[in-house]
Amino acid sequence: MADERVERRLAAVLAADVAEYSRLMGDDEEGTLAALKACRRDILDPQVVAHRGRVVKTTGDGVLVEFPSAVDAIRCAIDIQHAMSEHNTGIPEKRRIEFRIGINIGDIIIDEGDIYGDGVNIASRVEALAKPGAVCVSDYAYQQIKGKVALDFIDMGEQRLKTSRR
Amino acid sequence: MADERVERRLAAVLAADVAEYSRLMGDDEEGTLAALKACRRDILDPQVVAHRGRVVKTTGDGVLVEFPSAVDAIRCAIDIQHAMSEHNTGIPEKRRIEFRIGINIGDIIIDEGDIYGDGVNIASRVEALAKPGAVCVSDYAYQQIKGKVALDFIDMGEQRLKTSRR
Repeated sequence: MADERVERRLAAVLAADVAEYSRLMGDDEEGTLAALKACRRDILDPQVVAHRGRVVKTTGDGVLVEFPSAVDAIRCAIDIQHAMSEHNTGIPEKRRIEFRIGINIGDIIIDEGDIYGDGVNIASRVEALAKPGAVCVSDYAYQQIKGKVALDFIDMGEQRLKTSRR
Repeated sequence: MADERVERRLAAVLAADVAEYSRLMGDDEEGTLAALKACRRDILDPQVVAHRGRVVKTTGDGVLVEFPSAVDAIRCAIDIQHAMSEHNTGIPEKRRIEFRIGINIGDIIIDEGDIYGDGVNIASRVEALAKPGAVCVSDYAYQQIKGKVALDFIDMGEQRLKTSRR
């Protein structure tokens, strides 16, 4: 347990990736990449900015975003999924880009613009539990969101996450 | 449930007040006030700054402080209590200023520099559970602190707080 004074802050972490990315790339590499880039540029990035988020990094089909507020993070996630759903109308099912989104909050470490810690890892694990086109939030995040947004949540029960200490 | 876009952020909220303040004031009004002001100036305020906190307001014997990180908030609280304990050595027990400190985290609302919401209210309720000279943290805060600081915590079990929805 290092006690150096690293820079920390409470933040909501949103992790997103593309469902069936390998299959999509196998079907049509250049087309998938172009479609993903368009979705990021036209939907994901503007929504992140509108909700005061910051894209920390993109890795292949994955995006990691940091928000000052959990309420802003969930609103952003919902707006992205609604916009994606609308965007996908008319596109053949096999060629659709669908994001899985996970949200967690944590007292994360900030170092040269990148973010680290349990809070980040759990966001990725929670994201893996989301269905394509859906948003999954950790209990930590849910506790800070409930009663603050007009949304219905479905309790997925206790889940084993690789990095969770709970 | 208002859906206006108020400014929110995840923050750690530290609430402190003076144990037996009324009794102290009854015994010696001017002396107590001078002693409290000195403790704030020499101990509390510098520690808050050192741990990247911001004093939101002071009310009589109470102080409300906001931190970007829960880890910073608990470190600040511990440093304040250690410094106060040292300061009180040599002062007759009946004249000692002792702080109760409570810490919570929450997705709070910021409006013209002031802070609002459950996250703030719970910090005050948790503070009331702390013994003089001690620090009490909510479970929300504890989940973001555990494993990140070299401190021992005592579980106070489930507590009924007036404003808690849990």
